[in-house]
Amino acid sequence: MQQDKKCYFLILFFLLSLKAIRKNGEIVMSKTLVFGHQNPDTDAIGAAIAFAHLQNALGKDVEAVALGTPNEETQFALSTFGLEAPRVITSVKPEADSVMLVDHNEFQQSAVDIADVAILSVVDHHRIANFETANPLYYRAEPVGCTSTIVLKLYKEANVSVPKEIAGIMLSAIVSDTLLFKSPTCTPEDVAAAKELAEIAAVNVESYGLDMLKAGTNLSTKSVDTLLELDAKSFPMGDKKVRIAQVNTVDIAEVLERQAEFEQVMAAENGRNGYDLFLLVITNILDSDSELLVVGEPKANVEEAFGVTLNNNRAFLPGVVSRKKQIVPQLTETF
Amino acid sequence: MQQDKKCYFLILFFLLSLKAIRKNGEIVMSKTLVFGHQNPDTDAIGAAIAFAHLQNALGKDVEAVALGTPNEETQFALSTFGLEAPRVITSVKPEADSVMLVDHNEFQQSAVDIADVAILSVVDHHRIANFETANPLYYRAEPVGCTSTIVLKLYKEANVSVPKEIAGIMLSAIVSDTLLFKSPTCTPEDVAAAKELAEIAAVNVESYGLDMLKAGTNLSTKSVDTLLELDAKSFPMGDKKVRIAQVNTVDIAEVLERQAEFEQVMAAENGRNGYDLFLLVITNILDSDSELLVVGEPKANVEEAFGVTLNNNRAFLPGVVSRKKQIVPQLTETF
Repeated sequence: MQQDKKCYFLILFFLLSLKAIRKNGEIVMSKTLVFGHQNPDTDAIGAAIAFAHLQNALGKDVEAVALGTPNEETQFALSTFGLEAPRVITSVKPEADSVMLVDHNEFQQSAVDIADVAILSVVDHHRIANFETANPLYYRAEPVGCTSTIVLKLYKEANVSVPKEIAGIMLSAIVSDTLLFKSPTCTPEDVAAAKELAEIAAVNVESYGLDMLKAGTNLSTKSVDTLLELDAKSFPMGDKKVRIAQVNTVDIAEVLERQAEFEQVMAAENGRNGYDLFLLVITNILDSDSELLVVGEPKANVEEAFGVTLNNNRAFLPGVVSRKKQIVPQLTETF
Repeated sequence: MQQDKKCYFLILFFLLSLKAIRKNGEIVMSKTLVFGHQNPDTDAIGAAIAFAHLQNALGKDVEAVALGTPNEETQFALSTFGLEAPRVITSVKPEADSVMLVDHNEFQQSAVDIADVAILSVVDHHRIANFETANPLYYRAEPVGCTSTIVLKLYKEANVSVPKEIAGIMLSAIVSDTLLFKSPTCTPEDVAAAKELAEIAAVNVESYGLDMLKAGTNLSTKSVDTLLELDAKSFPMGDKKVRIAQVNTVDIAEVLERQAEFEQVMAAENGRNGYDLFLLVITNILDSDSELLVVGEPKANVEEAFGVTLNNNRAFLPGVVSRKKQIVPQLTETF
């Protein structure tokens, strides 16, 4: 009987120790979290769901989570394809020792304690900066318009078929990131991936795409605070900290009715978070133009970057729709 | 006639301007350089040759170069398969605006002016650190034993066949990085890739591999200065700068006959280059053990990292052969 008890405890100990096995200096835990950037857009959430499904199909124990609640556009996409929004987290260390990142790599856009966990893999389509690991990892980046386009490749390479609802959210991510193929970030690979996914998801790309984009442009009911947080990212440039928020609309003038209130909140955010410069990019998704609203300094860099003169803190940027390709590099250059 | 001359100059100007076309903020130049890290080993040179051949086959105008002359092991491999050593460069900006990196990403291991050029793609199997780009890029990293193993995958994905001599140098790179599959960095993918490449190259892996490794262990004729530069890398750890050199041998005692001279040169190198700590890892490739020789401070971190007490500045590390997996992470942890 005493022997049985000993044996029981040994088995219990063995099972508990399975939770964290040290192997070659890496910690192998029972579960790995997969997520996109803060202020998640449709690709941050869609690519996390799709990549997590692929990893699960390959036998890995992973869970898709998000660093924020879905915006209205993403919510529209999720409910169209009958998917649940991923659980929201802010820090990972309390529940996992390892993560997989999608649609971002810069630490300031990630979980607050990202530096404390092992990053096992990254799938992304952005520049690489402020990113560092202690160990070798899987890193798959390509200069295409959307992370989900790369994730589709990974499904094919692994010979895993894409379920209908996953195809739907991946298609939504591509439509969102490329503004229905109108963004200069869009590549032929994104268009081909979207067509392939639309077939699996059994929707018409053009009509579904426009419905989804419009669902994300209902700005009038949202507070200025909310609009400035919807799709905002921070970038270190030179020794300055630059915040760039973007909103999509079908009516720029309607958004600018609240210019004074926007400027007030942007100035307050600069003070609270140590941003030197805050740019709000108001993009008309039908005309593919943007209006820029700027609070903070150095404004001269903004004028130089886009070859414009700010008037009433604003400038019109014809043909500009992509923060990644038409705003960040140009502005970075001047610092 | 005057009109003809004007026309002629216009055409000349147009042709010259083709050399550098600005497109979407990226500079498209006529040629792109492909290279591995400083103090190139067989993978740094082999993966550059193999990746450049693949890019050329895909229609890109690239040239494989190297940040140093091949060591004896690499020379043995190159001449066995009838390949020329790549041209040696130290800076890229004078001749190219864009580069592709293999087998490294950390800027301090790359060309001196790496921060001034566009990095179009990276193929690597190391941790990511001290790396940054202004624009999105191709980045393909996997935690396997050798970059050439990943390059073979890229050939397959692109449906390009590997020529015999390229297969030979890729096989040599895998044998070198994995110490003929004995290193803990070696994965089943590396073994499978090596077997496949050996078949194309028409050599026996075991006998060719041992011959090649032995060609690299002829240390007695080399100066202490040379040995310390053969395969050395710098790593920022905490606020310290750590230099780690590695030599392969079949007789550790023979190398240690020159311990006093090694210590003298290592101390001088620390002073000249601002290294705080210099580690020389002397690896016996037949027994798969290493002896560590340490100059500089903090030595306490070395003792903590490997659970040893330094005696006469030395410690024996049984089973340790991999700087990447068995030295750098353990030491980084203590800083």
